[in-house]
Amino acid sequence: MKAVIISIGDELIMGQTVDTNSAWLSARFADIGIMTIYHKTVPDDPAAIVLALKEACALSEVVVVTGGLGPTEDDLTRHALAAFLNRPLDLHPPSLERIRVFFKSLGKTMPAINRIQAMVPRGVEVLDNDWGTAPGLKMKVGKALVFLFPGVPREMMKMAERDVFPVFKSYGKAVVMTEALHTFGAGESTVAEKLGELMRRDCNPLVGTTVSRGVVTVRIRSEAVTRLLARKHLAATVEKVESRLGKLIFGRGEDTLAGVVGKLAGKIGVRVATAESCTGGLTAKMLTDEAGSSVYFEGGWVTYSNTMKTLELGVPASLIEREGAVSRAVACAMAEGALRQEADWSVSTTGIAGPDGGSDEKPVGTVWIGLGHRSGAGIKTRAECFQFPGSREMIRDRAAKTALNMLRLELLK
Amino acid sequence: MKAVIISIGDELIMGQTVDTNSAWLSARFADIGIMTIYHKTVPDDPAAIVLALKEACALSEVVVVTGGLGPTEDDLTRHALAAFLNRPLDLHPPSLERIRVFFKSLGKTMPAINRIQAMVPRGVEVLDNDWGTAPGLKMKVGKALVFLFPGVPREMMKMAERDVFPVFKSYGKAVVMTEALHTFGAGESTVAEKLGELMRRDCNPLVGTTVSRGVVTVRIRSEAVTRLLARKHLAATVEKVESRLGKLIFGRGEDTLAGVVGKLAGKIGVRVATAESCTGGLTAKMLTDEAGSSVYFEGGWVTYSNTMKTLELGVPASLIEREGAVSRAVACAMAEGALRQEADWSVSTTGIAGPDGGSDEKPVGTVWIGLGHRSGAGIKTRAECFQFPGSREMIRDRAAKTALNMLRLELLK
Repeated sequence: MKAVIISIGDELIMGQTVDTNSAWLSARFADIGIMTIYHKTVPDDPAAIVLALKEACALSEVVVVTGGLGPTEDDLTRHALAAFLNRPLDLHPPSLERIRVFFKSLGKTMPAINRIQAMVPRGVEVLDNDWGTAPGLKMKVGKALVFLFPGVPREMMKMAERDVFPVFKSYGKAVVMTEALHTFGAGESTVAEKLGELMRRDCNPLVGTTVSRGVVTVRIRSEAVTRLLARKHLAATVEKVESRLGKLIFGRGEDTLAGVVGKLAGKIGVRVATAESCTGGLTAKMLTDEAGSSVYFEGGWVTYSNTMKTLELGVPASLIEREGAVSRAVACAMAEGALRQEADWSVSTTGIAGPDGGSDEKPVGTVWIGLGHRSGAGIKTRAECFQFPGSREMIRDRAAKTALNMLRLELLK
Repeated sequence: MKAVIISIGDELIMGQTVDTNSAWLSARFADIGIMTIYHKTVPDDPAAIVLALKEACALSEVVVVTGGLGPTEDDLTRHALAAFLNRPLDLHPPSLERIRVFFKSLGKTMPAINRIQAMVPRGVEVLDNDWGTAPGLKMKVGKALVFLFPGVPREMMKMAERDVFPVFKSYGKAVVMTEALHTFGAGESTVAEKLGELMRRDCNPLVGTTVSRGVVTVRIRSEAVTRLLARKHLAATVEKVESRLGKLIFGRGEDTLAGVVGKLAGKIGVRVATAESCTGGLTAKMLTDEAGSSVYFEGGWVTYSNTMKTLELGVPASLIEREGAVSRAVACAMAEGALRQEADWSVSTTGIAGPDGGSDEKPVGTVWIGLGHRSGAGIKTRAECFQFPGSREMIRDRAAKTALNMLRLELLK
């Protein structure tokens, strides 16, 4: 069974708004084994909408259309639907009453303009909207079941959960289950080489990779006739991927690198501090993106000036003078300084984020990352040097993530 | 002149990733007067890609395709293109050399798998990728000019800016010039009320507003038969908008709030420090996003624990005990503590970012923001309390930006 998703709106086609409805709908369809064959976004133009509907109904069994059901002059989806079906628009009194009641619940009178939202092409089924004003619409066109919803993500999601997916629960011959395993520390090609024949396109489960901001994600899609089988095959492939990628994998699904570090630190019962120069607070920001991070995050220093490095973290001025602020010695001294309060582990960064400030010896992208650990045996520090490519933003992002990843690998020991 | 945008990727069609490339591309096309007629997203499936290319070339004069040019087995766009054009894939030695050099610059050897990225359908123009491995491709198909780029947004944007938009700059009959004025501190409806009739839809220049992460941007689009006229009308409308919004406007175009604060501080010759609790380093991160920020940014503290607040910033433990960590007194004491090194100005944040930790008296979203200033007359501090809506991420983002905006307004005095 195949689905097509159509998004309607000038604001989408002009790039003023990013369409998130299509991704959400196709993820939900994938959950129940329905394959989306394409998304199409068209403007608030009846001819374009009619064309998109025709194409979709010819090629798929489910069509979900979102957007263009608002009350203003540029909302033309219902007119386009009426033209497509060659039927007139009739007033649907129960919908008009619902819209009136909706406004009343907000202490307002329904503006006259909203009456249009109760107009429905003759013979089309109305789907109540309990979360806004525009009702949804449902009809059969040839072999395709077509749903129309308002474009407001919250309203669309609620209505689709109630009216779309339950209809197909028993339809799908195949059940699809997916998993995403996130890796850090190796490029996409290295990950792909390690995965080897697992990535063949004729495999089921199907294994693919995507990259986003330094994180290479292995995506696995398992299709089978029953949920049990799909899950079993998925688990087997996940296991194979895990055995090939080992500690490169830091998490799955919604996991972030900082979140995983936090969970590990929380589990072991250690506290973490940061001492940042080139990343300028980004590492601390990532660690505190996570709710509940106060359990394991002690705090941090952004020692951008050398004065701050010396007076706040105790990095000797002579050391900075001799080795340079971007050096192993300074990275180690910063990591040590960050242990002055109640932290057990610390990470430090000092480097050249660019675009200026590079030299032949230390080009833009050179970053020393330090790691500090205080235990009964005293304080130990070490540092590694990295060369990150790209813009200032990318260099800072990779440096912070690499620091977190170094800490993760230590905490795993 | 009409454009079509095609996005390719299983991860898009399965909803694991939201496509942002299409919105960006069509916004840039709109800037130069080219109308996008639709976006289409298809899976990594050669048959679907060929079909999408055929349809697009028949209906438009510009086609931009993104995605599926990676080195792995699920990247099938170049194979689909070869099939569509009915031409073989040839090795393009200069591209192979570029990919080798790219890896070398990272201190790595090119994995064998990346060789495929240097394969090009015969006779197709190669567009160098200075920001990654996969080169772009360009060809004429019938009346349509077709561009293919990697799906990585950063690489795609850089290449499109260099290779796509300049080609069409002279095409439009009308000259379109745009300006974007960024405001902070008032909601979209307040800004719209102040703009009043300037926002009428039949105006030229056309004035609209968009909101992104707390920043309300006023977008002005001026269309005229000559560049001179378009610029003149644009300037007149910009002036009207400025006189109505005053200091709400912090910058234009590529300006960021932190960048503007940095420029101001640099111009006046003052140094800035941060003392953060709930924002966890985000304010420092924003300030150091800007190249050259070491000129005005002294450094910062992320005092997440109360111990850190007391021992590092000198906030008396008794004060925290008596007033609570989220209080005017603690925000002021943190701002004062941040002036201990060489900063002239400081900002501090202490609040409840959630999702837990709220109370009736101090619900999630409560943030005290402090401002410190050291001058010949000594140290002065003050703090304001805000109630930010939304998720943890939104609350932290708004708090950091509000701190920067308070500092901006002070530096403007």
